Amino acid sequence: MRIVLVGAAGKAGRAVHELMGARGHDIVTVGRTSGDVRCDISDQEQLARMWERVGQVDAVVSAAGDVPYAPLGELRSEDFESAWRQKALAQIDLVRTGLGHVSERGSFTLISGIPSRDPVVSGAAAATVNGAVEAFVRAAAIEIAPRRINVISPSVFTESLDDFGDFFPGFAPVGLADVARGFQKAIEGAATGEVVALP
Amino acid sequence: MRIVLVGAAGKAGRAVHELMGARGHDIVTVGRTSGDVRCDISDQEQLARMWERVGQVDAVVSAAGDVPYAPLGELRSEDFESAWRQKALAQIDLVRTGLGHVSERGSFTLISGIPSRDPVVSGAAAATVNGAVEAFVRAAAIEIAPRRINVISPSVFTESLDDFGDFFPGFAPVGLADVARGFQKAIEGAATGEVVALP
Repeated sequence: MRIVLVGAAGKAGRAVHELMGARGHDIVTVGRTSGDVRCDISDQEQLARMWERVGQVDAVVSAAGDVPYAPLGELRSEDFESAWRQKALAQIDLVRTGLGHVSERGSFTLISGIPSRDPVVSGAAAATVNGAVEAFVRAAAIEIAPRRINVISPSVFTESLDDFGDFFPGFAPVGLADVARGFQKAIEGAATGEVVALP
Repeated sequence: MRIVLVGAAGKAGRAVHELMGARGHDIVTVGRTSGDVRCDISDQEQLARMWERVGQVDAVVSAAGDVPYAPLGELRSEDFESAWRQKALAQIDLVRTGLGHVSERGSFTLISGIPSRDPVVSGAAAATVNGAVEAFVRAAAIEIAPRRINVISPSVFTESLDDFGDFFPGFAPVGLADVARGFQKAIEGAATGEVVALP
């Protein structure tokens, strides 16, 4: 399969790249500051240029999107707007603009995160935009068939516990190898409209 | 209870006003072009002025927020952005800015809609931003206790079937009297972090 991987330089992106590369797929990496194609997918013009360079693919994979964590009383309207643009709208635009670049039975696999279903203190913006991505995926699935779309919703990464573990007290973490397998299942499998909760 | 009701002139808002007025509550109505206080809650400055005029309340109720319906291939990035601002961010900002205006055990009750859990063709933007509101409510609930927050997620209104029924083939509609009772349950009850699916 020819796969375009957005957010390839991030922790999840690198794990997906490693596993899917070992599976023999042809991977085009995309990142804001590194990769085969440089692109900030939250910028519409850059996104259009990315598709011109990438052309046709069998799978579109996104492991991109930063969101601010802070107590609800400290989160400003601008923080929610930033989270929306970086994590939700950017991935929605990736799908919208990618519809003509994906093969007839190709797929999209996006990324969300556990706070939308299992909230944490300081995670209101994350929960909000992850909930948006997940609802978008369920809705888009019924309109883009036979093309497929799914979203991987991981807990805190085992490899990120030192930085983020305090936000997720007692949460079962998920290792990046298992996150990568979640993406593999979505890409090589046949499901659509699924929120793949990990672990 | 003293209740501020945003979106009071809409179909759901009028039904909530009627029921909660009959229950003997003191209701301050808010609308973009009518009501005790005129305010477009998607405008930060108008929202700040609204709170100056409204002062302290026991319950904040929102029945506001328009979203565009169109096939996914026709929805532009601007349509998702508009839906986000009108339905999700406006309600989030209502809660953020209202935290200091609600009594210690007071409540917020927002509105979403069925497409986030049961998608319909042409409803991708609606699903997305309703999913955002619902995830926000689950997340905010754990940070604002003992104040409460819930969201009413109605199917198509029985009274709106002529206009919107074609978007919801075979969906059980919900009458506005039942929608109002859903709001009453959230306002007068003790639940928090709940998505009240109607019917």
